[in-house]
Amino acid sequence: MTENKNILTGDRPTGPLHLGHYVGSLANRVKLQDTHKQYVMIADMQALTDHATEPGLIQSSVIEVALDYLSIGIDPNKTIILIQSLVPAISELTMYYLNLVTWNRLKHNPTVKAEIRQKGFGDQVPAGFMIYPISQAADITAFKARYVPVGDDQIPMIEQTVEIVRKFNRTYNTNVLVEPEIISSAVARLPGIDGQAKMSKTLNNAIYLSDPEEVVVKKVKKMYTDPNHLRIEDPGKVEGNPVFIYLEAFDPDREKLQNMKDHYQRGGLGDMVVKKRLIEVLLEFLSPIRKKRKEYEKDKKIIMQMLKKGTSLANEVANQTLKEVKQAMGIVY
Amino acid sequence: MTENKNILTGDRPTGPLHLGHYVGSLANRVKLQDTHKQYVMIADMQALTDHATEPGLIQSSVIEVALDYLSIGIDPNKTIILIQSLVPAISELTMYYLNLVTWNRLKHNPTVKAEIRQKGFGDQVPAGFMIYPISQAADITAFKARYVPVGDDQIPMIEQTVEIVRKFNRTYNTNVLVEPEIISSAVARLPGIDGQAKMSKTLNNAIYLSDPEEVVVKKVKKMYTDPNHLRIEDPGKVEGNPVFIYLEAFDPDREKLQNMKDHYQRGGLGDMVVKKRLIEVLLEFLSPIRKKRKEYEKDKKIIMQMLKKGTSLANEVANQTLKEVKQAMGIVY
Repeated sequence: MTENKNILTGDRPTGPLHLGHYVGSLANRVKLQDTHKQYVMIADMQALTDHATEPGLIQSSVIEVALDYLSIGIDPNKTIILIQSLVPAISELTMYYLNLVTWNRLKHNPTVKAEIRQKGFGDQVPAGFMIYPISQAADITAFKARYVPVGDDQIPMIEQTVEIVRKFNRTYNTNVLVEPEIISSAVARLPGIDGQAKMSKTLNNAIYLSDPEEVVVKKVKKMYTDPNHLRIEDPGKVEGNPVFIYLEAFDPDREKLQNMKDHYQRGGLGDMVVKKRLIEVLLEFLSPIRKKRKEYEKDKKIIMQMLKKGTSLANEVANQTLKEVKQAMGIVY
Repeated sequence: MTENKNILTGDRPTGPLHLGHYVGSLANRVKLQDTHKQYVMIADMQALTDHATEPGLIQSSVIEVALDYLSIGIDPNKTIILIQSLVPAISELTMYYLNLVTWNRLKHNPTVKAEIRQKGFGDQVPAGFMIYPISQAADITAFKARYVPVGDDQIPMIEQTVEIVRKFNRTYNTNVLVEPEIISSAVARLPGIDGQAKMSKTLNNAIYLSDPEEVVVKKVKKMYTDPNHLRIEDPGKVEGNPVFIYLEAFDPDREKLQNMKDHYQRGGLGDMVVKKRLIEVLLEFLSPIRKKRKEYEKDKKIIMQMLKKGTSLANEVANQTLKEVKQAMGIVY
């Protein structure tokens, strides 16, 4: 048997992807597709767990997210890109796993608890949202993913999957399900342009991969910097300064960046100069992405065909897993 | 459009069916199949929600339950008999409905609360068990069932389905889902042979449709009667006396039964005489059922073919519903 190098990763399609996604996961995927068997899932069903009343947004975002993927270099010949709702086996696996997790355990998932607070659900948490760790276990195990690249905040989700895998394999005396491991992303999380810890659509503080040039310029110009750097001659802080964090992530000229940092910290370098450099760097970074996107946008039908092809390959694998799961349980007719 | 006369009903396959099932639902199904489009679901996935560690029992019970159906006169040419786990659309619908029900609402379902107590789950309730009202809503709506024949204890389950149907149709501005109505079964519930309110496998107080003659005789002989009817000459109670309740349900000779009742109440009629009559009645009732069962048992492959055919018809209907549901939500690719 060949070594299992399967990876599962993906996004909830609730809007276009932004620089935070790029730094946090997309860039990594472009590398991983050369060394691993990578499944990238557009998780429309998971998106419904907290956007049940906005399926229109989800449907249109599926194609936008796919365009983002292709534009930044995810290659459908190397990576299997799939649409979650078109893989019924994931729903079926979820149903079986639900019986192996107690109600109490779900209530105490730290990621889910944090997200409930953050989303302000109060006592109106949808049941679908509460159980999404189980559905995520189905996503991961359906493709026998050995590796899952996630941020630290998602570690409890993977722990939940590992628990389910162990419980299933023990209960049904089998080894059909594969225990996933986390690949931590090397790059730090990108803050929002407002200086908040996370770039996010909800916080309206993101620069999107598909933003037109003038929008990027406008967003960078109004970016939060060091609030105590009032006059040009004042020494400024580089740590926690979003403009420098972005430069750190995207500026290919490391020497120039180091010089700017030193200058800023000494005093005498104005925010506008640094922002001008960031605009330059971002426009250069985004230009080929935008160009590729324009090419792909010409025929969205081809994008959908590509997604259907990926989904069809995904179905083969997920159906095989479901078959093995049912055989292991002993409910085969 | 023709009038919707769809019925959904079914059983969890966790053992053979008994006289209580016959009186409570099976007899009714034999009638309803002539006037309605009846789907009878063998709910193996639902059975797993409280029997996750016993899939072997479930798998073997599927065929036993099917034999019970055929033996008592459910006709696969009139009734669509299906295996739940072979209808993926049910799992998929469940996933979508989960987003329309709050976690809190589930906790307060009276039927689920009562069953949790009864099954002694304590704080180890499986998540799959907590959400089974939602999965039942998927069962019912998948077949656009207009009528659901259930006992009074199941009324909250149907109310949950009605809530989901209304919420779905309102949220997605559609009328694809059909609101079900309850058909109450006319016949009272059969007590156990030990006098407990309910005949059930768990309580080990059932007479099975497949019990051999000698087992039926033995079970009736040790039946609970009127505990105050100590001597033959004493007046006995007919109300709440399981032997008379069974006779009421199965004795075709109503005049003879009335005479026995009067005699028992006056005094002078011994339990053994009444039990002898019940044995006679039950053996006569069960004899053709047993004969038919023997015929069918000869080739279990044919039974499975029949189940697969029913399931295939069921899949056509459920897939069509799923398609309409996705269209209504607007997640179609």
